[in-house]
Parts: sequence; structure tokens; C-alpha cells
Amino acid sequence: MSVHPITPEPGREFVLTVSCADRRGIVHAVSGVMLEQSMTILDSQQFADTTAGEFHLRMHLVREGIALAVEELDAAMRGVAAAFAMTYAVHDLSRRRRVLVLVSQQGHCLNDLLFRVESGSLPVEVPAIVSNHETFRDLAEWHGIPFHHVPVALDTKPAAEAELRRLVDHYRADTIALARYMQILSSGLCAEFPGRIINIHHSLLPSFKGAKPYTQAHDRGVKVIGATAHYVTADLDEGPIIEQDFRRVDHRMSPAELASVGQELEAMAFARALRWHAEHRVVLRGRRTIVFD
Amino acid sequence: MSVHPITPEPGREFVLTVSCADRRGIVHAVSGVMLEQSMTILDSQQFADTTAGEFHLRMHLVREGIALAVEELDAAMRGVAAAFAMTYAVHDLSRRRRVLVLVSQQGHCLNDLLFRVESGSLPVEVPAIVSNHETFRDLAEWHGIPFHHVPVALDTKPAAEAELRRLVDHYRADTIALARYMQILSSGLCAEFPGRIINIHHSLLPSFKGAKPYTQAHDRGVKVIGATAHYVTADLDEGPIIEQDFRRVDHRMSPAELASVGQELEAMAFARALRWHAEHRVVLRGRRTIVFD
Amino acid sequence: MSVHPITPEPGREFVLTVSCADRRGIVHAVSGVMLEQSMTILDSQQFADTTAGEFHLRMHLVREGIALAVEELDAAMRGVAAAFAMTYAVHDLSRRRRVLVLVSQQGHCLNDLLFRVESGSLPVEVPAIVSNHETFRDLAEWHGIPFHHVPVALDTKPAAEAELRRLVDHYRADTIALARYMQILSSGLCAEFPGRIINIHHSLLPSFKGAKPYTQAHDRGVKVIGATAHYVTADLDEGPIIEQDFRRVDHRMSPAELASVGQELEAMAFARALRWHAEHRVVLRGRRTIVFD
Amino acid sequence: MSVHPITPEPGREFVLTVSCADRRGIVHAVSGVMLEQSMTILDSQQFADTTAGEFHLRMHLVREGIALAVEELDAAMRGVAAAFAMTYAVHDLSRRRRVLVLVSQQGHCLNDLLFRVESGSLPVEVPAIVSNHETFRDLAEWHGIPFHHVPVALDTKPAAEAELRRLVDHYRADTIALARYMQILSSGLCAEFPGRIINIHHSLLPSFKGAKPYTQAHDRGVKVIGATAHYVTADLDEGPIIEQDFRRVDHRMSPAELASVGQELEAMAFARALRWHAEHRVVLRGRRTIVFD
Repeated sequence: MSVHPITPEPGREFVLTVSCADRRGIVHAVSGVMLEQSMTILDSQQFADTTAGEFHLRMHLVREGIALAVEELDAAMRGVAAAFAMTYAVHDLSRRRRVLVLVSQQGHCLNDLLFRVESGSLPVEVPAIVSNHETFRDLAEWHGIPFHHVPVALDTKPAAEAELRRLVDHYRADTIALARYMQILSSGLCAEFPGRIINIHHSLLPSFKGAKPYTQAHDRGVKVIGATAHYVTADLDEGPIIEQDFRRVDHRMSPAELASVGQELEAMAFARALRWHAEHRVVLRGRRTIVFD
Repeated sequence: MSVHPITPEPGREFVLTVSCADRRGIVHAVSGVMLEQSMTILDSQQFADTTAGEFHLRMHLVREGIALAVEELDAAMRGVAAAFAMTYAVHDLSRRRRVLVLVSQQGHCLNDLLFRVESGSLPVEVPAIVSNHETFRDLAEWHGIPFHHVPVALDTKPAAEAELRRLVDHYRADTIALARYMQILSSGLCAEFPGRIINIHHSLLPSFKGAKPYTQAHDRGVKVIGATAHYVTADLDEGPIIEQDFRRVDHRMSPAELASVGQELEAMAFARALRWHAEHRVVLRGRRTIVFD
Repeated sequence: MSVHPITPEPGREFVLTVSCADRRGIVHAVSGVMLEQSMTILDSQQFADTTAGEFHLRMHLVREGIALAVEELDAAMRGVAAAFAMTYAVHDLSRRRRVLVLVSQQGHCLNDLLFRVESGSLPVEVPAIVSNHETFRDLAEWHGIPFHHVPVALDTKPAAEAELRRLVDHYRADTIALARYMQILSSGLCAEFPGRIINIHHSLLPSFKGAKPYTQAHDRGVKVIGATAHYVTADLDEGPIIEQDFRRVDHRMSPAELASVGQELEAMAFARALRWHAEHRVVLRGRRTIVFD
Repeated sequence: MSVHPITPEPGREFVLTVSCADRRGIVHAVSGVMLEQSMTILDSQQFADTTAGEFHLRMHLVREGIALAVEELDAAMRGVAAAFAMTYAVHDLSRRRRVLVLVSQQGHCLNDLLFRVESGSLPVEVPAIVSNHETFRDLAEWHGIPFHHVPVALDTKPAAEAELRRLVDHYRADTIALARYMQILSSGLCAEFPGRIINIHHSLLPSFKGAKPYTQAHDRGVKVIGATAHYVTADLDEGPIIEQDFRRVDHRMSPAELASVGQELEAMAFARALRWHAEHRVVLRGRRTIVFD
């Protein structure tokens, strides 16, 4: 498991994301800036939400000639951004997202995530793993990743969350990934990290929110189960959906068998959501997401 | 569209369904009866629900030698059925289920159903089509099927349902298929026909019950949509699920586009549910179904 | 089935497709032309094939203010097209593709296609239906579509193909759709209509080319079957694939049962391929297609 | 990863598999033996292959009262087996299949397999891992599994295969799992272990046999890719298929991206095939398999 993914050199590959009110001339203006900056457009995806009157754009850009600081590219966009009242961001792809992973006692998402990071298919850094149990300390250490045991009991939750905030700061994490972390985060914590916490829920939301979704699915007799990766908001299991995976099931499967099949779906939906988030492909719009996959 | 499906001769092909408390010796006893009756077992499926302690069986049987009346086969089962306190039924496959089809103004499920019946892939009789609109009279008549316009207004609903009951009787229908029939049946009517009314709902139940499920799905930003065929109970959109079909969607699809994709899913889930029902493959167990597909 | 799709007014909605060698400035130049022509970009999709060094673009455009003739838009593109050595085309979406449908004795794709055209989800005109059998004359006539019986025998094939050419001319058909047409077209005929003949083959090509693919699939014991919609070339079942649909199967299914399941897949893959072709979403690149869905 | 699956006590849980010419009375006779042996039938699946005139049965049995040696159950079946000219086998589920895993330099199937074994969802023993590279020695050792480096060069292949045979003997392996092992086994070796070697091939066989299937898939422009788990025979990539998994792809995906998506499919198809093999659910019939899943 020694293959590492290719990270571009600094100042060479960028992602630009733009959101603004839809009107004529946006693409011409933005592509004009990029032409001036000697950028080749590797990929460009856009979405005009005609109901909302909004326009959203993601460009994957390669700089020809000498490297360019991301701050300069940001500055170059300012005029056009002001003219169109754009919300925009530029990202240098040499700087990987730093994902703090939280897990409890089920390791399928964690194991899958670590394998993907090491084999190069998931371009993030995992600076540390945090758990309310000791279960995965060995695994983390084998991968050379710091492990923090932060137990959570009813009366220690505020302290645990304070420690979590400290770890986010300490490791300069920009993203928190809940890889089957079975504690509910407080509303306050959720609100502090909007669009930065990604959870995997083991049902096809909005079906079967809350506890024991596979048992709920079994009781209701559904013929398909799934998993949902979503941004966490203060409203439990109601955050914007990034990705869902799903599979046909039948009456013969017990809740435990549904859970076993579901583990595959959870790991895949979670990994795709993290990759899209890491590659700046997800635009948050209220309860919905735009995914430029 | 002239190909007609093969219906077996009377007294030759049977389906036996059995449900009882699970204990040793059931299969031996039932297969003994069938051996005495010169039956070859074409297919046998069983399900032991270990949680409930229940046993369910479906056998597809072929009679060798001379034909046998279904009543005789029924009588032959009586001793074993009493010994094991079985609920059982025998069906002669030469007698097709008679399905009264109800539809409103969207014809995709109706068109698909009629094509399948005529081309032989759906082994049912459709003695008549009933609608609260005139939209599909021409289509019905082109297929040579009687069409009844039964308008429904707020104050005429009891009269309309009385007419519906009359048509069920008149056509000796054993099943009512709601092929996108947009009227809610009264609790009373639902209760009169338990396990005999099949509806197609345009969402992956239990998500998005009630009106405009594709709009609800769009607003919630789900990444998969689906359709659910279920038995109708007095509890709206809560009846036992027979079949679901589903497909990946993305942010670019408007509610209208979701509805267009969903039509394919509705037609397929509905057709499969009707076929399984027609072939005595569905066992109703509370809110769940066992489908011996 | 009286709902008809909305066709835009002439001169209001356009699709532009562009292919050229990839270099900086293409998007800026094209979007500049569109800005001058008072076009709003409803949708824009592009694909930079880095291996081949090619760039492909599809824009869906809406003209604001007064209508514009498609010839004027074409003329407006000329300068930029020459500067970048582009292959390009502009299409006024008020002019629907005219699809001549060929069918033999299996009607599932034809029935599905006609339903979609009438209900508005497939934006094409079907000026006539041609068959080597009389089977579907009634169906065609019920839909008010001219039906031509063109029998094909070993020694009459050249005459039959001559008649087919005449019908294409007579009906000004731009596309020929083989909706389970079981005659092999001559190499000559295929070569005359490059990118204009769409076939549905009942296997997941390149598996199971030629005759009886479901029997081949059964013999090989595959666990998934599918259907492939592709452009027809002189090389049988080797043309560029537009769309494939597929489903899990198991050992219990006979070739006839595989065929029955496959009919659904064929109808869906065929319909999607025709819609994408009709909406100018398919770019032909050698043996491959780019589909801007 | 400390959760270990439940293995039944010896003499308590059995699987019986039976194959014979189809005739009346088989189920009655077999269920009679089981009744005498105080066996409860937890699950029973059968398949009458009407074309071949064959009957196949798998029963999952639980012994009530005191434990029974598998040899006694075997002996109890002898009379019925002779009367019906059955091929049959009985397996005590307390004895797990011993799977020797072979791998080269890609670890996704190996990692997934080890995780499943440790977390209890794949009921096999892995007594050793063999590789023609050193890449995964650390991983194997971390899991506490002996690792054997058996390099293969053109002139050392016979010696390498001799060592492989020795390891199979030494570890009393009943199954060899090729978890992306990139060496072609000799015909002789394949013939020595019929139905005992399982390979994962990275295409939807019979499409894209041989080398670089994702590149082949890209060149052919298919819209779906997949993975195939199959028994190995002397005929390369032609062995009986146990399981296939598959996913939609599009023109934007390079061969490397197809390979990345394909890894998920490979791991899942491989794991399912191994589980079904381990649970005696797979019946080999010429080029086909019957899978009692």
C-alpha cells in the first residue's frame, strides 16, 4: 500500500468556483480573466438554476508558463467578481484538504478511507483520527496517523466537544469526517463548522432517520436500502445530501444482513462524497447540493 | 401485438402456497401429498422467518397423467394442513387473475400494462378499464377493452365508489390495479379488498408520501428516485411494499425531468408487482411482503 | 395520450456543437460570439480529450429580443470557427429531427417509442414506419402514421434497400431508427448514412454480437444482461455505442425469460439514445461517442 | 476490527448439496432422511433445470438434540442417494474453508478481503498469503498471517508452481483465491484444482478478456464496466462465472479512472463469490454456475 497519488506542484493547477445571479456574459468574462492569466481550462461545468435565477460554475485550470500564487489568481478575479456580484473561490490543488476523521466502533468506512488515501484515489490528508473508543488505535498507528481517544458520556459531552475543537485547530483541519461516529454533535458545534462536517448515514434519507435504520428498513419491508453522505447541520439527518448509494434487497435479509450489505454502500457513498468535497466539486445551496462530478 | 401468452390447460399446473408455525416435518409432509397426487415440483421456494417463528412455502406443480380438479388438490391437502395448522391455498394456473385497471390522466403505466398483457409477458385478464376522465377511452377501445368513465367529485365520491364496487362484481375482478389513479380511495373501500388493490406510488416509500413526490424529492436534493408498488390499506401510502425500482439522478434535473425518468420506474415496478401477484408469489405478512420471485 | 411536447418558436432556442484541436481561448471566443448575438447560455458542456488533444463543446442557447434565423447564427460563428479550425454546427430546436422507424415482428421498442413521442418525452417527428412484416400496420395507423411494408428476401434485398432510400428521401428523414429490425443492412447502405442510423442490439456489446444474444448470454452463464444502442456502421454490431442499460440476472432465468427482462432494457436504452441524438447531445469520435447528457 | 464471526459448534449446523436427474419424489425422500436425523431445515433452495433434466438442491440444516458427526449424516444419506443416483455432499459449518490468497501489487481486493474476514462477514480462514512481490508483507504480518514471497520469472514458473502446490498442501488449503494475482497459472495447475481456484477479472466477461481490460473498455467506448469473479479453468478468462458487479460510466473517464471505479466492483464481486463458495452455495455445471444465494 505504498502507492501515493500525484499532487501537482504549487501554482500549477487550480479550481475556480463561482456563484452569482444568472445573466448574460458571465462565461465570457470569467474565461477572459483566465485567458489573461495563461490558464488552460481542463474542465468546466456550469449549472443555471432557472427557478432560482442562479448561475454556478466550476473550472479546473492549468497554468502554463511559470507558477502563479493562488492569491494572484484570486486578485485577478476581483474586477469581474465585483461586476457580476459573484461569490467565488480559487483553490490551489497542491494544497490538500485536511480531514479529521471521527469513528466509533465500526471500522468499515475508516478502513476503506485509509486504503483510498494510501493508494492515491482519495486526495486528502488525514492528520489525525479521533474516537470515543480505543478500538481503532492499532489500526491508526499502523498507518502512522495520530490517534486521540476522546470518550463521551452524558456529562462530559461539552468537554469532549471542546477537545474536538482543539484538535481541529491543532491539526489545522478544514473538514471533519464522521466515519460512523455514533455520537450526536451539539447544535452549537454543527453551527460552527457549516459545510465542513460530512456524515455517513446508513439509510436512503429522508427515509429512516435516527437510530437503527436497517431495523427500520426491515420492519417497513422496503426492497432497496442505501446510504447517504451529507453535510451536517444542527437538524439531525436533515443536512444537504452529497451522495447516495443503494442496492436491491429482499424479504430474506435480516436487519443484520441488511447492515452487512449496507456497509459496502456506506463506504462507497462516503468516499465519493469526501473526494468531491476535496476536489471542490460540491456547491451548497440551502438544503440541496450541486455536485460537479 | 398479436402474440398471446401460453395458458396451461385446466388441471395441469398449480401453485400451492402454505404458511404456518415453523416446525420439523412440514416439507416432508407437503411433498408427500404431492407425490401421492402425481405432482412434479417445478419450483419450490420457502422462507423460515426465524424471528416470527413462521414458515412460508410456494410450490409450482405440474400434474402428470390425467388432469386434476383444483378442488381435489385442495381436498388432498386437508389432512396435512390440519396437522400443521396451516393456512394454505391452491391455484390452477389456467385461471388467470382478473384485474380491473383504474387510471386518471397519465397513461404510461396503462400503456405499458396493456402492451405486456397483449405480448404475453403479464399473465392476467383485464376485463375493463375505469377512469375518472375520458382521456384513455380511445386507447381502451382500440385494445377491445370496455371503458367506464366514473367521474369523482367531492360530493359524488360515495356514488363513484358504489359504481366501482358494482364494476368489480360485474366483471368478477379479483384485483384492482391503480395505474396512476389520482383519487384517494375511502378507508371503507380499502378495507373491503385487503390484498386485492395494488397501487403504484411515484416515490421510494417511505420517503415522500402524499402529493407531488417528485417535487418533494427535488426540494430535498436526493440523488436517487424510485417508484413503489404496494398493496393499498386504509393508511395512505403505508401499505405493504411489493416492489420498488430506482435510479440515480442529479442536481440538474427539474421536478418535471425527475417525473419523466420516474415514469419508466413506475411502469416497471408496477408490472413486476402485478406479475408476482398474478402468479401467487406474494405473501402478505403485516406491513411486509414475502416475494417468491 | 394527447399531451404534446412544447416545441420552441423558430429562432429562439439553439444548440451549438463545436469540435476542434484544444488550445487556450476557445470558450472565451465562442462565448463572445454568443454575447454579441444576445444569446443566454442555458447549458454548456465541454470535454477536453487530453489524449487526443481535442476539444468538444455543446451549448444550449436562448435568444433574447427578436428571433434569429439559424443561418444568421451560423454566419456569426464563421470567423471564430476559421480562427480555431473548428468543426461546428448550429441547430434551431424548433426543427425536430425526422426519424424513420424500421421494425420487424417484436413491438416493444416501437410501442415505447410511439408512446414517448405522443406524450412529449421524445422530441422527434416520426413521419413513417417501415417493416418487412405487416404485424404493426394497425398500430401505426391507429397512431396516424403512414406504414410501409417492404418485404425482404435474399434476392430482393437490393430492391428493398432502394425502396428504403426512396422513403428516406420522400419523408425527408434525417435519422433511421432500427427498433428491433431483424434484417442486416448492406455495407453500402450503412456507408451512405454515417451517424444517421441508430440500432438497438439486445446484448451488452461487445459481448454477444450477432444472432440470439440472450441464448448466448444464458449459455455463458453471465450474471448481468443488457442492451446497447449504437450508430450503425458497415461493421456489424461494432458501431459507436451511444447508450447501454443493464440488469442483474441469475441461473434460474431461461433464454426466454432473459429476453423478457431484456425488452425493458432495450426500450429504455433505445429511447435515451434517440433523445440524445435528437437533442444534438452525441458527438461521434471514431469508435466512441461523447454524450453531453 | 476485533469483532469475530460466530462459528457454530461442531455437529450442529450443516449444508447438504444434491444434484441428480430430475424425477418425482426427491424432496420427499431427502426431507424424510433429515426428519429422521432430527434436522430442522433453516433454508432450502432448489433448481430444476428443465432443459438438462437436472435437479439441484441446497439445504441449510440445524441439528436438534445432541451433536451429530458429519460422517453420520453422510452415511444417513447413502440409501436415498443410491436410489436417486445422486451426487451429494454434506458439510459441517463449524469447519471453515481454508483459502490461500494470492496477490501481486494491487491491494484493494486483499485489503477488502482481510477486513471482511476480521470483521466477520466472510466466513473463511486465510492460513497464508502468497505473492510474487514483497509489497504486502507488512500488511499480511500486521494481520498475523504468514506471508510467502514466491517470485515468478519466465524460467522459474514451474518451480514457483511447485512451491505453490507445496503451500496448498502445507496449509491444507481447499481454495485458492486470486486477489488480483497477475500471473497466468499453467494449464496443469488449473486442472489439478477444478472448482477450487477463484479469480477476479476486471471486466464484464466475456467482454475484454486478457490484458488491460479497462483500456479495452475505454477504447470501445462502453457505457458500463464491471468485474467478474469466476472459477479458473485451463481456458483463460473462460471459467464459470460466479458473480459480476457493474456500474455506469461515461466518456469523460480515462482508463485510469475506469480502473479506480472498477476496484470497488472487483472487491465486491470477489467477496460475494468467496462467501458463496465458502457457504457451499455454488454448484458448477459445465460453463455455468447455479448460485443458491
